[in-house]
Amino acid sequence: MQRQTRLVIQNVKPQLDNGIYFIKRIVGQEVNVSADILADGHDALGCSLNFKHETDKKWSEVRMNSHTYDEFFATFKVEKQGFYNYQIEAWIDYALNWQHGTTRKIQDHQIVKSELLEGALFCKALLSKSSKTEKKFLEIAIEAFEDEKKYSFALDLAQSSELHQIFLKYPTKTLSNKSPELQVYVDRKKALFSTWYEFFPRSASSVEGKHGTFKDCEKLLPRIAEMGFDTLYFPPIHPIGEINRKGKNNATIAQIEDVGSPWGIGSKYGGHKSIHPELGTLKDLKNLVQKAQALDIEVALDFALQAAPDHPYVKEHPQWFKWRPDGTVQYAENPPKKYQDIQPIYFESDDWKNLWQELLDVALYWVEEAGIKIFRVDNPHTKPFYFWGWLIGEIKKKHPDVLFLAEAFTRPKIMHELAKQGFTQSYTYFTWRNSKHELTAYVEEMTKTGQNEFFRPNFWPNTPDILPFHLQSQNEAMYLIKYFLAATLSSNTGIYGPVYEYMIHEGLPGKEEYLNSEKYEIRLWDWQLRNKITALITKINLIRRDNTSLQQTNNVVFCPSDQESIISYYKFSDDKHNQTLMVCNLEPSYNKQALVRLPVEHIGHQPVRVLDLITGNSYWWDKEWNFIELHPTLPFHLFKLEWH
Amino acid sequence: MQRQTRLVIQNVKPQLDNGIYFIKRIVGQEVNVSADILADGHDALGCSLNFKHETDKKWSEVRMNSHTYDEFFATFKVEKQGFYNYQIEAWIDYALNWQHGTTRKIQDHQIVKSELLEGALFCKALLSKSSKTEKKFLEIAIEAFEDEKKYSFALDLAQSSELHQIFLKYPTKTLSNKSPELQVYVDRKKALFSTWYEFFPRSASSVEGKHGTFKDCEKLLPRIAEMGFDTLYFPPIHPIGEINRKGKNNATIAQIEDVGSPWGIGSKYGGHKSIHPELGTLKDLKNLVQKAQALDIEVALDFALQAAPDHPYVKEHPQWFKWRPDGTVQYAENPPKKYQDIQPIYFESDDWKNLWQELLDVALYWVEEAGIKIFRVDNPHTKPFYFWGWLIGEIKKKHPDVLFLAEAFTRPKIMHELAKQGFTQSYTYFTWRNSKHELTAYVEEMTKTGQNEFFRPNFWPNTPDILPFHLQSQNEAMYLIKYFLAATLSSNTGIYGPVYEYMIHEGLPGKEEYLNSEKYEIRLWDWQLRNKITALITKINLIRRDNTSLQQTNNVVFCPSDQESIISYYKFSDDKHNQTLMVCNLEPSYNKQALVRLPVEHIGHQPVRVLDLITGNSYWWDKEWNFIELHPTLPFHLFKLEWH
Repeated sequence: MQRQTRLVIQNVKPQLDNGIYFIKRIVGQEVNVSADILADGHDALGCSLNFKHETDKKWSEVRMNSHTYDEFFATFKVEKQGFYNYQIEAWIDYALNWQHGTTRKIQDHQIVKSELLEGALFCKALLSKSSKTEKKFLEIAIEAFEDEKKYSFALDLAQSSELHQIFLKYPTKTLSNKSPELQVYVDRKKALFSTWYEFFPRSASSVEGKHGTFKDCEKLLPRIAEMGFDTLYFPPIHPIGEINRKGKNNATIAQIEDVGSPWGIGSKYGGHKSIHPELGTLKDLKNLVQKAQALDIEVALDFALQAAPDHPYVKEHPQWFKWRPDGTVQYAENPPKKYQDIQPIYFESDDWKNLWQELLDVALYWVEEAGIKIFRVDNPHTKPFYFWGWLIGEIKKKHPDVLFLAEAFTRPKIMHELAKQGFTQSYTYFTWRNSKHELTAYVEEMTKTGQNEFFRPNFWPNTPDILPFHLQSQNEAMYLIKYFLAATLSSNTGIYGPVYEYMIHEGLPGKEEYLNSEKYEIRLWDWQLRNKITALITKINLIRRDNTSLQQTNNVVFCPSDQESIISYYKFSDDKHNQTLMVCNLEPSYNKQALVRLPVEHIGHQPVRVLDLITGNSYWWDKEWNFIELHPTLPFHLFKLEWH
Repeated sequence: MQRQTRLVIQNVKPQLDNGIYFIKRIVGQEVNVSADILADGHDALGCSLNFKHETDKKWSEVRMNSHTYDEFFATFKVEKQGFYNYQIEAWIDYALNWQHGTTRKIQDHQIVKSELLEGALFCKALLSKSSKTEKKFLEIAIEAFEDEKKYSFALDLAQSSELHQIFLKYPTKTLSNKSPELQVYVDRKKALFSTWYEFFPRSASSVEGKHGTFKDCEKLLPRIAEMGFDTLYFPPIHPIGEINRKGKNNATIAQIEDVGSPWGIGSKYGGHKSIHPELGTLKDLKNLVQKAQALDIEVALDFALQAAPDHPYVKEHPQWFKWRPDGTVQYAENPPKKYQDIQPIYFESDDWKNLWQELLDVALYWVEEAGIKIFRVDNPHTKPFYFWGWLIGEIKKKHPDVLFLAEAFTRPKIMHELAKQGFTQSYTYFTWRNSKHELTAYVEEMTKTGQNEFFRPNFWPNTPDILPFHLQSQNEAMYLIKYFLAATLSSNTGIYGPVYEYMIHEGLPGKEEYLNSEKYEIRLWDWQLRNKITALITKINLIRRDNTSLQQTNNVVFCPSDQESIISYYKFSDDKHNQTLMVCNLEPSYNKQALVRLPVEHIGHQPVRVLDLITGNSYWWDKEWNFIELHPTLPFHLFKLEWH
């Protein structure tokens, strides 16, 4: 292909998979862009980073700088939700080249009369673009450049910084080149900073044996707010299938009184747009959402795309399920295991476009009818990737506030692909990362290797599906440590709440699953409980709310300690007004002493007061390495760094 | 965008800059392709690497394999010159999934009657595709699967490897996905294995003061062939400008007898399509090219796009030059330096399309009129990158044998961009890499970090423009070491010959330039010379010709030694039939002893005979680390490894 431009633009970063996916930010964050920009020969080049919100008509422009050969940098800030496009433009800067060369010739005592005539042409080209003062200056320069009698004055003008500034400000971008356009999607702040509490609404009652309701949930809101949670997530609230319903502890045959799993969705009472009758009505849900909102809590629903055998879809849209040659419908299986209470949706159906539309309508229904703005998506990795890319995109076009948490505990590349398709947040392997090495390596990988451009972790110590082995004892320190790490390493965090506060720790033998799981039965909790775990979770959540350095994840900097069980890390707000240092003893049974190194590369060498925001104690640290001792009774420090 | 496919294909390698550039191979080489391929859920996926030469109508296909989660690999061999396209296709393999799941159920003693009916459908779909024997087998299976009386026979068939093989062979690629197409350009072998000798034809005469001619050059061909060179490169052979001609040692004012620089192209005798009258005629050149060819030598010309002030273009196409406001033409400059003997071509001309066409015609002229198939391109980095991409592409469309060596001693990214635009080979920094660390790091960077996909180095110890400091003494060992390293590290190598053989070492004070450079004057050489340097260059060249492991560059494996001045590296042919081990003492003044480690990861631990192909001596090495001693009189071993 014949292209006359002399500029080549390569290796533009950030960029995901050749630009087919967008990167992610929240409102107010920056995008640091770099590129290799090359021109033949010795001419100086100019280049700019151009950016534009999807609703803007005009591009904004910021000039790029270079710190090394052929690599250029610039930054722009995203101020609004939605898509921004960004692009790099590069050009040969003839006027600056001229000034640079002419200055050198003048310094070499060469006669530059011909060069001055060229300079006059560059000046004339800018007359119509420049301001009044600039125009005046240019006119004087033109006159001097063209009048041999003013030669020595002309030499001064030619080399002047005034002229340099004007040339710099108004580049003539002849034969410029542009990179392909790239995209960044900008979310509201909650995408990056959220604190989740999960419970089963049917366990919200305070009366033994009574099915909880949305009205019961309303009564629990003040407690959740007081504990500093801002997101209340419910497992599916839809009618529960009655055919092949599972019994307690996942028994294949349910007893008559068994309530079944909320993930077995659909019965004669309705499907994905209906509410399980015993929980209440749509109106009850709306009331709950509004009351929660008044306490700065958002209600998150589960988006679980599967059907019980008695889901209305099965009769109304049989083409959305897979039918076997013997005329039976295909239930879920992972041979030799069978899941007869669940029928997977058949995305390969010929009627897939109507299917997709209906599933989109389901999500839109809860957004538009009940004011839901957060979905936790169940097993998204068992539905097609491109389906998610489309569904999330369609919803965000109409409702950019809506956020999606991907519940995909699977292989890394699969989790990454879901994030690239548009999931706002993702569950992670944090649940199983315990040693200093494991935690450091995992968090470094997520925050420092390019994953930070698209993958937003949400750290959970437990979920209804996962009671990790290390929580299968009543070691209080372990429960404190895991929440502390989750909530200070990651700005998105959550717990499956009541069982965590109660230290419910009995698992199925040899498995990381809860015994007598709430997935299959109603549990009664003492919602008046205020124990040490409750108290410290509350404390940590309020500290997160007050300290902006804890409201993002990619700012983490690990700090060395001389003790294998002591982990330490530093975080800072973008403006550096808020700086915190976390130190945690990962050994839940013994006290440990250690020397911990301050991150002097970031904070400098001046003495610092470290104020423990949990205990209120403060220490004056005037050395690089400082002594700490942590007991299992309170196995961490959450220091604020202060110099005033 | 709505796409029903469940497959995602990412991270396809090799791939340059989002696939906008092609990678490179020579005929007979392999392309190892890998990709991340993902599907939702648990279904097994199938994938193939599809490839096709530009003249092929149909794609060939090779199935990809996986050694780890979600990453797949396959290889194809390029057999013809020109472009190949390659692409990955992935699909869900329903039939194999069915067999896998059904087998597990059978092993779990489940009833699989319904599954067998499904199996019959998979078999029926293949009846029309399969061979006679396969069809027979499928018919038996269908009958058994559908007949409850043959249930136990059907179970055997369902689990059979015969059925597995048929399913594997004929995948139904429903809802498959394909990666974008990528390209590899395949050159003839010379692109990767070439041995260059450069001299100035005007110095080819054996009579003092007489201008050499192409006829004189003919007489030198046997000597060059005998020394094992296969490429004879001449600086520009065109009429030399007479206006502002440079004198000896680059003097600004030439004397009447001065011959000028061959790079100052164009005079009243013609321009880029003409021959300097004193060298001879086009017929003489053609004779030379043919006689060289008979000795397996190709003649390479210089492609130097610039004009002397009296070049015919200046009058015929003034629009191809830049004119200053005072009516003078712009000569080359790098302020405050001026090059008044050279006028750069103005690629920003409005008439650029005619200009490009003319420059293409120049190259085509020498290809089509004189049989030239190799160009050494002078300073390509001072002409637009896209111009080269276009010009090289256009020539290769008609003449795929034509090769281009880029003479761009400049910043790495610039050199890489030229290679990506299509240059076959590139000069390198080898000229200045001397220590073990420098050589190892540089060669590892070129061969192991992705540059190997597009950048083919050509190692030159010297050029007419560069007499590096370390060659500015008559240290014979240094001349031997640098040629040995160039010719065994890189399969493309070359020297600016007569001055190297003669150890011409006097430079301009403080500069890496030759005193009394042939660039500005005619030199007389004793072409009968056969000294030790000549002898060892000859030996090394013949060893290169006989040992295929030395005919590529990316196969190099560095081997540790315990002595800072001893470098060692191993090379192997693709079939491993030829394996060589090089050991060189980089210290040119002292003898050195060292232990050198055999590359046991590649050759295994069995004892090996190392035969020095230079001296004929051989040693039996039965340990991992082996003793060597190298004297400056013969500062290297070039071992062939033998086990028979």
